Amino acid sequence: MSSKFADRIARVQPSAIRDLLRYGDDPSITSFGGGYPDPALFPTAELQQVYADIFAKESATALQYTASAGLPGLRAQIAKRMANGGTPTDAEDVLVLQGAQQGLDLVAKLLIDPGDVIVTENPTFLGALIAFNPYQPEYAAVDIDEDGMDVDALEATLRSNGGVKFIYVIPDFQNPTGVTLSLERRQRIIELANEFDVLVLEDSPYRDLRFEGEQLPTLRSLDTEDRVIHLGSFSKILAPGVRMGWVSAEPAILEKLGLLKLAADTQSSTLNMTAVTRFLEGFDIDEHIARARVVYRQKRDLMVTTMNDAFPAEVAVTRPEGGLFTWVRFPEGFESAAFMVEHALPEARVAYVPGGTFFPTEERSNYARFSYSGQSDEAMVDALSRLGEILQTEM
Amino acid sequence: MSSKFADRIARVQPSAIRDLLRYGDDPSITSFGGGYPDPALFPTAELQQVYADIFAKESATALQYTASAGLPGLRAQIAKRMANGGTPTDAEDVLVLQGAQQGLDLVAKLLIDPGDVIVTENPTFLGALIAFNPYQPEYAAVDIDEDGMDVDALEATLRSNGGVKFIYVIPDFQNPTGVTLSLERRQRIIELANEFDVLVLEDSPYRDLRFEGEQLPTLRSLDTEDRVIHLGSFSKILAPGVRMGWVSAEPAILEKLGLLKLAADTQSSTLNMTAVTRFLEGFDIDEHIARARVVYRQKRDLMVTTMNDAFPAEVAVTRPEGGLFTWVRFPEGFESAAFMVEHALPEARVAYVPGGTFFPTEERSNYARFSYSGQSDEAMVDALSRLGEILQTEM
Repeated sequence: MSSKFADRIARVQPSAIRDLLRYGDDPSITSFGGGYPDPALFPTAELQQVYADIFAKESATALQYTASAGLPGLRAQIAKRMANGGTPTDAEDVLVLQGAQQGLDLVAKLLIDPGDVIVTENPTFLGALIAFNPYQPEYAAVDIDEDGMDVDALEATLRSNGGVKFIYVIPDFQNPTGVTLSLERRQRIIELANEFDVLVLEDSPYRDLRFEGEQLPTLRSLDTEDRVIHLGSFSKILAPGVRMGWVSAEPAILEKLGLLKLAADTQSSTLNMTAVTRFLEGFDIDEHIARARVVYRQKRDLMVTTMNDAFPAEVAVTRPEGGLFTWVRFPEGFESAAFMVEHALPEARVAYVPGGTFFPTEERSNYARFSYSGQSDEAMVDALSRLGEILQTEM
Repeated sequence: MSSKFADRIARVQPSAIRDLLRYGDDPSITSFGGGYPDPALFPTAELQQVYADIFAKESATALQYTASAGLPGLRAQIAKRMANGGTPTDAEDVLVLQGAQQGLDLVAKLLIDPGDVIVTENPTFLGALIAFNPYQPEYAAVDIDEDGMDVDALEATLRSNGGVKFIYVIPDFQNPTGVTLSLERRQRIIELANEFDVLVLEDSPYRDLRFEGEQLPTLRSLDTEDRVIHLGSFSKILAPGVRMGWVSAEPAILEKLGLLKLAADTQSSTLNMTAVTRFLEGFDIDEHIARARVVYRQKRDLMVTTMNDAFPAEVAVTRPEGGLFTWVRFPEGFESAAFMVEHALPEARVAYVPGGTFFPTEERSNYARFSYSGQSDEAMVDALSRLGEILQTEM
């Protein structure tokens, strides 16, 4: 490899996400790593029927190229869901994406020039950092507490950083902490965005997976100056394997994102877009989500209870109101990544996501993210008990 | 929209491709625009069975997240096809993509810094220019003749441009001209790439659609210094609606492309990857392609014959040895884009792709690309006859 390319290549760093996806394939390891929905919750019978019907009735169009913005019927269904959920949206306000991840990449491509300041929560979603990094931003990471981003700290950050392009926020059952941004802080973020002339990138793939408490309005629905770019996803409420997400934003931004989508991969899979459309038309996804909530709530309870029983008292475990993740805080000085490599994996056969990679600008080694969605009750209890024993011994 | 973002947004230009995809949806227009495979050639019954079997037997994995590089079984099948076609390839040399288009985007993201010089054929694939443009390259476009890129002109270009990152070439039934790069010139391009220390991006989605003549070795198979990045696609030999392509390159480049893929959209659709794998395992795709060749050859003959009969004598029509496109040259001064808007669409109800957008660095308004794959014989003859009448009248 010639040195002419080496510097650009060196900027692309290996990925903890990808390594984790690999652990999930090893059957001797109980992985709480990826945010893998429970396969038992996939609407398999319904999707089986949907695909069979597509092949019987509309294969010529479902297997062909189509408009890059997405099937009109799917855009309409997505808009309807958003409107029903309190965010008035029309079909032309929606661009279908290859998962919400593509939205992160396209927004970064559209908005980030090298050196631009991006405000994020601290910690934030690793996949977003991976999407943003190739465009070489500077991060200003704002601490979060049990109500989400510290908006006083946000204001100070906006004051001291002249060129912030956007604020990236995961307001509902944040990945990785499980925290939800309070209504008051949602309103304050909108006010600050208006005052400091910045955009807001709202990423909300877990929004529908609420177990208790009240659903809060999206930032997009509180938007008064068309600054919010909203990302949604079917991965956690339908199935990840169809790779279906969307973005909704004001027309000028959406138009440009559409052109960047065209450049990135021409279009999403016509077949899968057709299937998701027919599923939404023919079945009640909210009924399906309601069943999923019951299961995930029980999984959350089981994980939190087992951790509180099995882990040393100095380990703090969050109890999120929804979503798929528990955020665990070990004592200062604990190295969760090293611990996984040296003890959790070889001795307890347990994988989790070490928390360090979720912090954009600092080293914080004493956290870990656990997903409670992907394991049977028995496997979860066994694995967490094994891990608890190792922790008791080693800490 | 605040002015802070306007300059970046202004760099994303509207797209002739997207507009064309729209014309294809209007049933009153006969569009020779997009490179749409003939739906009658989709292996519909086989795919119907494949998807049904997946839902019956392996839905839990097919609907779940998977490794971002792609299903191992699919990578192996792709490698086997490449090896059988004369390009020795192992599964780990293959990264599954969201169509070859994603390969264009990821290679651009990896390699192009603003102002870098990219060598292309003149004309070249519009979708590649759309993929490259957001990364702000400078283009050095090298003329092509009936044997492909003029390699003497290429050498002169490499000599006079110090910082060429890569040469982008579509060696088999080029889009838009239908021309195939000769063996001698393939070898010369490899030699020049070695001499001038540049990479080669080989994009070959039509390679299997050969009607006559001998299959030529891929640039990747002639590569002596691991400089060739090879893109392939199932869109034209299976179906576009499953969005399945791949890239093969030397390990360091492939590793980085894999990380950029992860950042761009996490992974391709597990469901579609499973389906393509099972199709390749259970059916003979070459038998399927052989049938497609017969049909497309006949379509090519019909289009070329009808054009030669119906168009004015001053209009030159190419007869490609394979692929999906005819490249038409009108007399100097003819404006094919204006003609389509003013006459072809309203009067003849015919759409084609005006050739101007395929030229990266100059204005050439007297060309057009016609695809012969997507229309019935009757519709093709009627439409081309109508167009011929309008041309006779207006020229």
